[in-house]
Amino acid sequence: MKKIEAYVRHEAFDPIREDLLDRGFPSLTITEVKGSGRQEGVVEHYRGAAVVVNVRPKLKVEVFVADKDKSMVVETILKHARTGEVGDGKIFVSTVDEVYRVRTGEEGEEILDAHAPWEIPA
Amino acid sequence: MKKIEAYVRHEAFDPIREDLLDRGFPSLTITEVKGSGRQEGVVEHYRGAAVVVNVRPKLKVEVFVADKDKSMVVETILKHARTGEVGDGKIFVSTVDEVYRVRTGEEGEEILDAHAPWEIPA
Amino acid sequence: MKKIEAYVRHEAFDPIREDLLDRGFPSLTITEVKGSGRQEGVVEHYRGAAVVVNVRPKLKVEVFVADKDKSMVVETILKHARTGEVGDGKIFVSTVDEVYRVRTGEEGEEILDAHAPWEIPA
Repeated sequence: MKKIEAYVRHEAFDPIREDLLDRGFPSLTITEVKGSGRQEGVVEHYRGAAVVVNVRPKLKVEVFVADKDKSMVVETILKHARTGEVGDGKIFVSTVDEVYRVRTGEEGEEILDAHAPWEIPA
Repeated sequence: MKKIEAYVRHEAFDPIREDLLDRGFPSLTITEVKGSGRQEGVVEHYRGAAVVVNVRPKLKVEVFVADKDKSMVVETILKHARTGEVGDGKIFVSTVDEVYRVRTGEEGEEILDAHAPWEIPA
Repeated sequence: MKKIEAYVRHEAFDPIREDLLDRGFPSLTITEVKGSGRQEGVVEHYRGAAVVVNVRPKLKVEVFVADKDKSMVVETILKHARTGEVGDGKIFVSTVDEVYRVRTGEEGEEILDAHAPWEIPA
């Protein structure tokens, strides 16, 4: 199994979520994070004072998938997160050893399989 | 060493924390996240308007353990996080290569071992 | 490639960021998390009532690096995050299989290489 961690712009989330849902993958987790990336910070003004902001808000999107679905999910995220401007973010893929569904205690990769539209994912 | 990532309901945290503490594992990290899971969003009302909410608050609980303690920690989380309703969440286990305690610079799995009650974990 | 996850005090972030930037590594992600660590909670007062606080705010700093840069980044974090007091936190290192730059779709470890000062990292 694979964990896909994508650090993207906030605007990318809705198209990613909708596209993955259409493909049977409704389970995503998002976290508000901050990213430092550019050499120079952005100068903002706060109550009349200039402040250098070195980190900017980003969205971390996590998706856990079976190996066979990894490329599709990465491509889907790339497609919707790309604007072509600096700051589009990065995607990381790593290996997961075990997965459990808490509701039933079931263990195994098939928990992560695509859902048909009439199924209710856990 | 293993990293255990559990995405659970907020109510599950206190019982998980107390049980793991009793077993000598006081070190947990929690992050406020949002999870998308169900096919259909929940309709909420905000200032008179119906809004479809597609993500809901979840708690991510992270625990890093030696291999020998992995099953116990997973079982403890499953036990306290299970309500039997959709939305109980999932648990993922992955492999960690190295661990360092910042205070002392020590490296190695024994940093993650159970603490006796009179010890002060870092 | 490696993922370095450091759970540190908030005060440690600026020195870590500046030092890594000087070494050509401007890309960090930070997340506000809460850590449970000590046997006994801290007693705080809220509107006249004593409340036991069992988790305290921590900062999670994530850095993704090529294998050859892992030790340097771990040492840099250890150096700036250490006060010698309980609560300095821990650092974990794990393996990453793939990395993609969203802006260009490029894949591979060289995306994580050090940047010269005149380069604009993605």
